[in-house]
Amino acid sequence: MAVKADGNTIRTERTRARILAESLSQFNQRGEAHVTTGMIAAALDMSPGNLYYHFRNKDQIVEQLFAAFEERVDVRPRASAGGPEAVEDLWLYLHLMLEGIWDYRFLYRNLDDLVWRNRRLRERFNRIVDRKFEAMVALCDGLVRARAMRAQPAEIRALTRNVLVVATYWLNYQSLRAPHATTLSRADDNDLGQGAFQVMALVAPYLVGDARRHLDRLSQHYID
Amino acid sequence: MAVKADGNTIRTERTRARILAESLSQFNQRGEAHVTTGMIAAALDMSPGNLYYHFRNKDQIVEQLFAAFEERVDVRPRASAGGPEAVEDLWLYLHLMLEGIWDYRFLYRNLDDLVWRNRRLRERFNRIVDRKFEAMVALCDGLVRARAMRAQPAEIRALTRNVLVVATYWLNYQSLRAPHATTLSRADDNDLGQGAFQVMALVAPYLVGDARRHLDRLSQHYID
Repeated sequence: MAVKADGNTIRTERTRARILAESLSQFNQRGEAHVTTGMIAAALDMSPGNLYYHFRNKDQIVEQLFAAFEERVDVRPRASAGGPEAVEDLWLYLHLMLEGIWDYRFLYRNLDDLVWRNRRLRERFNRIVDRKFEAMVALCDGLVRARAMRAQPAEIRALTRNVLVVATYWLNYQSLRAPHATTLSRADDNDLGQGAFQVMALVAPYLVGDARRHLDRLSQHYID
Repeated sequence: MAVKADGNTIRTERTRARILAESLSQFNQRGEAHVTTGMIAAALDMSPGNLYYHFRNKDQIVEQLFAAFEERVDVRPRASAGGPEAVEDLWLYLHLMLEGIWDYRFLYRNLDDLVWRNRRLRERFNRIVDRKFEAMVALCDGLVRARAMRAQPAEIRALTRNVLVVATYWLNYQSLRAPHATTLSRADDNDLGQGAFQVMALVAPYLVGDARRHLDRLSQHYID
């Protein structure tokens, strides 16, 4: 049963979406702490009162953007048949995850402050990490069963923890290491590719046979 | 030729040292952004004017603490004979580094903001990372020559980059993953040991023979 939306509802939804898009863009560019609701309203040629009608405060905007981020990264890696293709599936999956992080990079810029200020975001962020942990362990178990990986269960857990640390903080590291002062906003697509390569480099030494050779070939492009 | 210090110089130095120690403690506990020079002066039963006589502003305090951090982590790994002992030397070295990060953890809490606000700190921080990069590559080259490690030069560079990412952001990750809301101030010694273990887990799959077996024994304590 489809609900028929009237003109008002559609306008309201459109305005909310515009506010969220503008907020995301400004948060990513300047850092969330340096953006006020007034700046967002001004950029949209909107009165502060109109913005408040849609979002009571900045925290509500942050929570809405976080919900969108949650949905965006809630992707499961494809359950593959194992072997060389599994390596490509994993690489693609990492790329999708890093793109999600990139699109919502303001969340990662001062992650410690953000999750310390907002307990609910902290819990939700940790649920995402928990699910990624399980997905990565399952992926490795699959590679072991397919004889594409040789690793003990304890090694897989330590590896997975390192995968999560590198994936979570890669953009921060890139931003720190960039030759000129830069914020996360200046990272680019190439940094994402380099990030996926660095995560694959964690997995590489555990791969064997065709899977290892296939990864070495895929990695050529990134080797410095 | 020793310079004889008079009573005034000694008192001045002592006051500076007390201000720095109190600042470090408060920065680590609350985050540097949430501490004012007024709070530091109050905790030391000192007038704000007296504090300003020693440090013009908070940034000067941060720079002095950074200089102390720089000196603290400017340790070179022992050039070892290779073999199983080399693994213990590396582990010890990592522990020393992580302890340095731990003692000055306020620098790492909002690293992105800190180095974005202060170009000089950014450059000095990157010089530290550069030196650690070189030290780690040299260490791996030594292990390869001693036949304790099997790795190509490109693998060593990718490995070293991951070592730096995990070592730099390990405390942030631990703080994020702690069961209760916590700041970096609440991490403890056990987290440092876990951090050293996670970094060694990056190196482990490249070790061979006795070195690998020795690392596996040392790791037993940390395996979950």
